[in-house]
Amino acid sequence: MDDSTKPRQPTRATTSMSSTRRVGLWLIGAFGGVGTTAALGLAAWRHRLIDGTSLVTMLPLFQGLDLDAPEQFIVGGHDIRRTNFEETVALFQKNANVFEHDLVKQCRHELAEWSENVRPGTVLHSGKTIAQLVDIPEVHRASSARYAVENVQQDLLIFRESNRLDQVVVINVASTEPPMVPPEEYHSLSTLREVLSGGDWVLPASSVYAYAALDLGFPFINFTPSLGASLPAMEQLALERRTVVGGKDGKTGETLMKTVLAPMFAARNWEILSWVGHNIFGNRDGLVLDDPVNKESKIKTKDRVVSQILGYQPQTHVSIEYIRSMDDWKTAWDHIHFRGFLNTKMILQFIWQGCDSILAAPLVLDLARLALLAQRRGEVGVLKHLACFFKSPMGVDEHDFFHQFGMLQEHIQQYRTAPPTR
Amino acid sequence: MDDSTKPRQPTRATTSMSSTRRVGLWLIGAFGGVGTTAALGLAAWRHRLIDGTSLVTMLPLFQGLDLDAPEQFIVGGHDIRRTNFEETVALFQKNANVFEHDLVKQCRHELAEWSENVRPGTVLHSGKTIAQLVDIPEVHRASSARYAVENVQQDLLIFRESNRLDQVVVINVASTEPPMVPPEEYHSLSTLREVLSGGDWVLPASSVYAYAALDLGFPFINFTPSLGASLPAMEQLALERRTVVGGKDGKTGETLMKTVLAPMFAARNWEILSWVGHNIFGNRDGLVLDDPVNKESKIKTKDRVVSQILGYQPQTHVSIEYIRSMDDWKTAWDHIHFRGFLNTKMILQFIWQGCDSILAAPLVLDLARLALLAQRRGEVGVLKHLACFFKSPMGVDEHDFFHQFGMLQEHIQQYRTAPPTR
Amino acid sequence: MDDSTKPRQPTRATTSMSSTRRVGLWLIGAFGGVGTTAALGLAAWRHRLIDGTSLVTMLPLFQGLDLDAPEQFIVGGHDIRRTNFEETVALFQKNANVFEHDLVKQCRHELAEWSENVRPGTVLHSGKTIAQLVDIPEVHRASSARYAVENVQQDLLIFRESNRLDQVVVINVASTEPPMVPPEEYHSLSTLREVLSGGDWVLPASSVYAYAALDLGFPFINFTPSLGASLPAMEQLALERRTVVGGKDGKTGETLMKTVLAPMFAARNWEILSWVGHNIFGNRDGLVLDDPVNKESKIKTKDRVVSQILGYQPQTHVSIEYIRSMDDWKTAWDHIHFRGFLNTKMILQFIWQGCDSILAAPLVLDLARLALLAQRRGEVGVLKHLACFFKSPMGVDEHDFFHQFGMLQEHIQQYRTAPPTR
Amino acid sequence: MDDSTKPRQPTRATTSMSSTRRVGLWLIGAFGGVGTTAALGLAAWRHRLIDGTSLVTMLPLFQGLDLDAPEQFIVGGHDIRRTNFEETVALFQKNANVFEHDLVKQCRHELAEWSENVRPGTVLHSGKTIAQLVDIPEVHRASSARYAVENVQQDLLIFRESNRLDQVVVINVASTEPPMVPPEEYHSLSTLREVLSGGDWVLPASSVYAYAALDLGFPFINFTPSLGASLPAMEQLALERRTVVGGKDGKTGETLMKTVLAPMFAARNWEILSWVGHNIFGNRDGLVLDDPVNKESKIKTKDRVVSQILGYQPQTHVSIEYIRSMDDWKTAWDHIHFRGFLNTKMILQFIWQGCDSILAAPLVLDLARLALLAQRRGEVGVLKHLACFFKSPMGVDEHDFFHQFGMLQEHIQQYRTAPPTR
Repeated sequence: MDDSTKPRQPTRATTSMSSTRRVGLWLIGAFGGVGTTAALGLAAWRHRLIDGTSLVTMLPLFQGLDLDAPEQFIVGGHDIRRTNFEETVALFQKNANVFEHDLVKQCRHELAEWSENVRPGTVLHSGKTIAQLVDIPEVHRASSARYAVENVQQDLLIFRESNRLDQVVVINVASTEPPMVPPEEYHSLSTLREVLSGGDWVLPASSVYAYAALDLGFPFINFTPSLGASLPAMEQLALERRTVVGGKDGKTGETLMKTVLAPMFAARNWEILSWVGHNIFGNRDGLVLDDPVNKESKIKTKDRVVSQILGYQPQTHVSIEYIRSMDDWKTAWDHIHFRGFLNTKMILQFIWQGCDSILAAPLVLDLARLALLAQRRGEVGVLKHLACFFKSPMGVDEHDFFHQFGMLQEHIQQYRTAPPTR
Repeated sequence: MDDSTKPRQPTRATTSMSSTRRVGLWLIGAFGGVGTTAALGLAAWRHRLIDGTSLVTMLPLFQGLDLDAPEQFIVGGHDIRRTNFEETVALFQKNANVFEHDLVKQCRHELAEWSENVRPGTVLHSGKTIAQLVDIPEVHRASSARYAVENVQQDLLIFRESNRLDQVVVINVASTEPPMVPPEEYHSLSTLREVLSGGDWVLPASSVYAYAALDLGFPFINFTPSLGASLPAMEQLALERRTVVGGKDGKTGETLMKTVLAPMFAARNWEILSWVGHNIFGNRDGLVLDDPVNKESKIKTKDRVVSQILGYQPQTHVSIEYIRSMDDWKTAWDHIHFRGFLNTKMILQFIWQGCDSILAAPLVLDLARLALLAQRRGEVGVLKHLACFFKSPMGVDEHDFFHQFGMLQEHIQQYRTAPPTR
Repeated sequence: MDDSTKPRQPTRATTSMSSTRRVGLWLIGAFGGVGTTAALGLAAWRHRLIDGTSLVTMLPLFQGLDLDAPEQFIVGGHDIRRTNFEETVALFQKNANVFEHDLVKQCRHELAEWSENVRPGTVLHSGKTIAQLVDIPEVHRASSARYAVENVQQDLLIFRESNRLDQVVVINVASTEPPMVPPEEYHSLSTLREVLSGGDWVLPASSVYAYAALDLGFPFINFTPSLGASLPAMEQLALERRTVVGGKDGKTGETLMKTVLAPMFAARNWEILSWVGHNIFGNRDGLVLDDPVNKESKIKTKDRVVSQILGYQPQTHVSIEYIRSMDDWKTAWDHIHFRGFLNTKMILQFIWQGCDSILAAPLVLDLARLALLAQRRGEVGVLKHLACFFKSPMGVDEHDFFHQFGMLQEHIQQYRTAPPTR
Repeated sequence: MDDSTKPRQPTRATTSMSSTRRVGLWLIGAFGGVGTTAALGLAAWRHRLIDGTSLVTMLPLFQGLDLDAPEQFIVGGHDIRRTNFEETVALFQKNANVFEHDLVKQCRHELAEWSENVRPGTVLHSGKTIAQLVDIPEVHRASSARYAVENVQQDLLIFRESNRLDQVVVINVASTEPPMVPPEEYHSLSTLREVLSGGDWVLPASSVYAYAALDLGFPFINFTPSLGASLPAMEQLALERRTVVGGKDGKTGETLMKTVLAPMFAARNWEILSWVGHNIFGNRDGLVLDDPVNKESKIKTKDRVVSQILGYQPQTHVSIEYIRSMDDWKTAWDHIHFRGFLNTKMILQFIWQGCDSILAAPLVLDLARLALLAQRRGEVGVLKHLACFFKSPMGVDEHDFFHQFGMLQEHIQQYRTAPPTR
């Protein structure tokens, strides 16, 4: 590992509010575990209650880049439940046994202020299970996609204006929707627009948000396996509006491990006979995934990476079970059966015990910073260099984590030598 | 992962006896687990009873290179016990439950023939525990280092002559010796020679073998943590005799995992709080390591890699225990405690259940093939591109497995474009 | 643990052919993994190639009882595939890497002889998945239950006569059938008989075998979760014919662990929040269980024991997946989440790596010996003292393994003081 | 498991302050993890902030007995550091991430009051590592055993008088002392008294406390592996003073598991080939155990139980390592290698992740309640029925947990029928 990735403590990349620039982080599903943790973490970082640990953009690699400092961020978002960050933080403390009390106390001001910025969202085509979570009447008013897009855009513009923001990045951290393959006619931007204005829009809420954001020229990042901006029409929209788009499905735990370990088996020419992964957790995301329809899209992306790295298809099995008592602590047991020399079968097992939101939230902040910077540098379209953050990276077939990380390193190194394109 | 490492089955690199070249594989500690498995595996490979699984040099990356085919190899070696490959294979079948009976039966001819090529070795300064394993009177005759070197060289030359070999590679797969830091005067080749001819030689047996091999211009690879050729004087000798040298300590299981996982923690900017590794196994190598003196050198190399990859020193603990019933099945439990966002502690544990000799033997064959090829191409001195094979790679500070593998890929790619230097 | 259970090695219970009595062990599904292993093990025991390890009836507790020695047993059975013990043993060696070659060689005579005693079975109502395994035309001739029963009885009687056997015990080790709740009218022996002679019999093959055996006065043991003799009418039949019956579903691995560990949590007054068990294996039994219909009955019995021991219902999840590469090596990962003092959540995980047939076969021999002895002592009806051998013990609500073992100890102690009842 | 142990929730044993009796719980090492947790837990229980989970004496088995209710207890103790319960609670919250904030807030009154009852202790012969922890000058004044005993007794009597207590139980929860075998002359009470008054006392601090308590007729329980009252002279003293004594070394985690699992292997007649247990934790107790001298006594008691249950000695290995980041979360990995039918080796592994003090503290309260009740009922000498609480139960060779629990059940059942002996 070259020096750029070595976090020689305590010297890390430092942040400094280099400008008077103000940026907005708009979270779809703001009051969920990831949204709440990202907001709290951002506030804590502002107060220097935490160091840069677990923030990729605080690696020495990023030192000296014009990334936004925590003080420059204002948080807002959409949610379908009537609550606020302080409540969701308290719930998290109680259930998942995370977030130090003193730290939370010192972040109360931001949590209260930012809660005010969260508006009722839409559940258009999000599936039954998600729809059942709604407890705000406003959410249901969106009877058409067009109306929903307009509502979302209005919320985003008000957020920008009232906070005098230079840029706003929209990140989807809402619950996973059922999988959908968009019909052909949705693939072109012009027909997508037709459907939106008059026709029979079938895309899920995540795509409503994606359209709304990109159409305003705001960067959009899909941190979930939902459809979001993952269709050609949306990429065209991003290009047209000169904004950036990234996703999808944050690579946080078991899948990260898969994309780290599978290359080892490949490089040593061991044959993987079977790879079984069993995941248990009990947060709201897990409850949604307990609906087999919503679970399907999650399992698909988790399962695919191994065969894509290996070049052949071993027997794989991935299960995700909702176990209430685990709350946000996602535990994965993976059993990897492989064949070595002289046909000998051997076994690697791992047990991953991570707190889902704690793993995801810093990546959300990293993605916000990197997307905002990329847009400022004049990049447009899909941010392929962010592949290492995602289970299903848009526009990238590479799943080997270290190859993906190499792509990030290379791209960032270019920032130092090449001038921005605008 | 680029295509060169993807073992798209069943297409793998193929071997073909491209020439009438004949090469020798001389194993120090031939009748040990690794030596026995390497010999059996080579024979089985000759008969195409096994495919290339677990041989790194059978990855597509190596396709088309002039590597030696299994048919071109003759095996010989030194050992300090009176036994033969058939006996040690049978013992392995019984104790470790490996090696299919039918496969062994078809390799009987080679095993018998190659056993005849194994000569009594030396235990000069190998430590008490190794010395106790000796059961051949000839072993003890070597009263001086000079005499020992001459004996070894005589054995090697007879092996080459009687088998009409074009090249011979010497690989040390003997039990781990106690650690030693060679005195200053051993660092220069000229003083080393003086000590050898008249003085008070203090280096262990592994260095006797290394000297003997390199002095004859034979490649020498140290697959163990013993001293071997790891001192400047030996590198000078290799350069002078225009041969190659590589090592040390094959990276087979737990340490491989460490050098694969530690970079993930670094790239995600997680802080490793502690890394505990507990290893149990029960083969002869384990018995030798049960002597705290011999164990020390093993633990050192296993322990160092993590901090070198991370750039800081978390608390680490490595233990190796000799548990008879495990025989050759080395089981490692690693508990990695790390700190993520908002100071949250999380845990990764893995359990590695591998058969030590089965893991090591194919690497021995890979190293033999790569060292012989390198020498033919005119390379001299330390083979740094083999770093990914070793726990303590000679001349290389890089421990990140994928960076090391990248070094190998790059070097091999050059073989395709650059002509040999001789 | 009192002395009766301490296997002070090498002194164990010894076997001696105390009489000229000859007994038969008739295995339903003889050529399956359990049947094959039981036959091989019995033969190896005859030749004293194995000691009494893993045989419960070889504990000191049983010393001096008139249990049948291995030499007194003749094996026969039913199967629906055309194969033989030698073939199935060879397959097992290849796939599951068990059974030493020398040991098998010395048992060839018995394996060949006993294979001759295996007759085509019936698949009446065994479900589609089992039916697909049939490869002998005779199996399908059984068009009615009555005809099937008569066929089975004829086979049993021929076995007894031609081998001059004093007793024959029938043990079901066939693949798991889909679960079924027998209609009311099958609960009484008289209506069961009516249905058999003329009506519309709906019970599965396992019940055909059970009826056939009990009706002849032969002990019947159901080692599987299939219905077998688990209905009142069958118990009546056993009483009427003065024979014994036992079952069901051998407690071999993960469930054994559950019934050992759950009492610990109860005795320490810890609250189990969730108990997740994930099982993977790849033998023929696994293939059958891969059919969700057949799997259901297995999961039910595995899942129920925890709540019955605790007295309340924690969240539980049991999964069984067919993973080809595992073959007979069933691996279970269990994650037990529990609440201790001051509401603190803690975790126990275990990983069980056992060979299914190796675990089951000795229990089959134990059950055969204990059932034959019980019958000779004049016991009739359900053998409740065998509860510790079963996941769903007939007539017993107790699932705590050590309470069950205490029941066995008590019953066996009585053998020493009380005379047989006939 | 019979009904007496089934915690049918929410019906548990209830506590009611049946009398005006007041009792004292005197903790040696009060400000350590176990002492602090016991004090906090007792206070929380008083306020009904916790239910009876993890308290053995709250099982239905104990319903209706005259056990002391939490309201009847006053806490005091000895410690060698200048701190208080509120400080140690706060430290625990920070480091081990346990104890809910709201709960602690409501217990502040008790914590403050009880802290006032903690007096400077003695470190006579506790070993270097413990001595280094001392930060109160008074601790060192005890230059002789006699003086130390008198000091302790004075503290105990003042505690009893000033709190108007009917009984006081003394429980040792201090750090583990180095192991010691007391010389012969200490075995008789009369010589022990002589040594105390004039001679050369060599016993450690734990024995000073034991003597002081028993001599006053106070029950003494040794929850640690230190010597304490474990010598015949102390038992004589207990009998003479008509008080009770119990110990030693609370059975909380890995060892509990051993005494639950080893009987399973015995009952199934599997041969344990090796049992490896690796423990990591990072609390103050761990720091003390990091001194090899203190560690030795801990490992001994942990290691012995397996062979005593099995009746033979498999290869065992127990290690305890101090890993700072783990703090109070003791994690044990156990690898149990066993031989089953046909010589097949199989593996059970478990990983125990428990919070040491959380596991220990409720047992301390149970022991206090049971010892006080026993004394009131006129029992004297060693409380053998408490064996299931200890790694090395005084006066009991039985290590099988369920046999031990059966002894407790039987003894408690007698309470219902037999009148107290005084």
